[in-house]
Amino acid sequence: MDTEADEAGSLRADRARRVANVLRRQVLDGAFGGGVLPDERALVAEFSVSRNTVREALALLRDEGLVERRRGVGTVVVGRAYAHPLGELAGLAEVLHHHGSVVNQVREARLVRPPRAVARRLGLGEGEQAVHLERLRSLDGVPLSLDSTYLLPWIGKPLLALEREALEHRDVFDLIETVAGAPLGGAEVSVQAVTADAATRAVLRMPESAGAVLTVERLTSLADGRPADLEFIHLRGDRLVLRARVAAPWGRGPGQERAR
Amino acid sequence: MDTEADEAGSLRADRARRVANVLRRQVLDGAFGGGVLPDERALVAEFSVSRNTVREALALLRDEGLVERRRGVGTVVVGRAYAHPLGELAGLAEVLHHHGSVVNQVREARLVRPPRAVARRLGLGEGEQAVHLERLRSLDGVPLSLDSTYLLPWIGKPLLALEREALEHRDVFDLIETVAGAPLGGAEVSVQAVTADAATRAVLRMPESAGAVLTVERLTSLADGRPADLEFIHLRGDRLVLRARVAAPWGRGPGQERAR
Repeated sequence: MDTEADEAGSLRADRARRVANVLRRQVLDGAFGGGVLPDERALVAEFSVSRNTVREALALLRDEGLVERRRGVGTVVVGRAYAHPLGELAGLAEVLHHHGSVVNQVREARLVRPPRAVARRLGLGEGEQAVHLERLRSLDGVPLSLDSTYLLPWIGKPLLALEREALEHRDVFDLIETVAGAPLGGAEVSVQAVTADAATRAVLRMPESAGAVLTVERLTSLADGRPADLEFIHLRGDRLVLRARVAAPWGRGPGQERAR
Repeated sequence: MDTEADEAGSLRADRARRVANVLRRQVLDGAFGGGVLPDERALVAEFSVSRNTVREALALLRDEGLVERRRGVGTVVVGRAYAHPLGELAGLAEVLHHHGSVVNQVREARLVRPPRAVARRLGLGEGEQAVHLERLRSLDGVPLSLDSTYLLPWIGKPLLALEREALEHRDVFDLIETVAGAPLGGAEVSVQAVTADAATRAVLRMPESAGAVLTVERLTSLADGRPADLEFIHLRGDRLVLRARVAAPWGRGPGQERAR
């Protein structure tokens, strides 16, 4: 590891990470007009660091699959990321359709015997079946997320009878509300960062350099509290950013999150 | 890639990912008593898949640094993960102190000229300084998160005068409210999955196998709307899970998130 320390005693790797922190968000937010980052000299001035530190920071972003170096042009943004409001997780298609054409490729849709851990979360009894639906969501042909969901049989079975087209073009939540004839109530969401395996990367067509995905587990219930479905979602780390607004006070009472 | 397909036409890699989806959450939730996963035969029965698929699923979790194989014992959970309520991001120390001893190692605390993108978010004028505070948070000696925050100078400078001990043992939000003499109002949070670079992995002492981190950007404001600080947080993917409760309706009106 580089041990070159500046007057404040921090290492170059630390300084490069701090520079990358700021640049990463700017890249994801589409802050660079024309998709070209400022040149090294400008970044040196901007961040008050050495040229080597700037290069190391840019290398970090390259390794994450966010930027690449083009001869005669400089460092360019490889592809933009999309904001995914956590309070509206349900409506990803709604959120994305402003950006282009959203298609859900149906990879599996069938009755299954759910794993016990899934059955328990869904309140299913011993031996009860569930409907498993797996869809790959793409925007303008670029895969963004892979969603594997287990639905209660009375909600899922009517979905199996639908035209493929309905499953391909509608949000699963719209479908659930239509089938259940009842509004959704809420969801428990948990989010984790994982290095995607080769097969999942291949399905999501992630570049070799981009390896991290957000894995989201979401248990959604109807307004009356009955569970509707349990999803396991892989979101490409290089293409999606979850956003939330959190209102204080935290820790001192119930916090609140508002959708934008 | 394996192309062995079952009667429903899905590939073994797909089936392994679906099995891993369920096991991953069980591992993170501490669902396996004694930290030992059921043996292969039990998992074959539980998930209605072949033994090879079970092995592939376990290999995925090993590659994520969540489990390992021990001779004569089976597959064991390497370390537990901690839930991090998104609506209470502020109070991570508060959340974690039930689990053990929380220490924040101060890696940097000084006045800096902030990058322009940071100054803009904080509402700082040209040439105004900020206080940069970087802390590595550990639970019982295990590093969990690395937090780099830029504070407004009038909030940050008094922090620089504090005893190191105060910075090491108190949440930055407590400190801000004490110094500002005003309650916090809310935060804009964005979350992304990234493959950590070698230096960051070393700081967080992540095992070779675990590479993914959640990068969280959080802009926190006082109750009167003035920005207080902008943080860039790295959370170990193998040790922390973000949780949130989201209330419907989504996309059809403002959603809500309640802290647990």
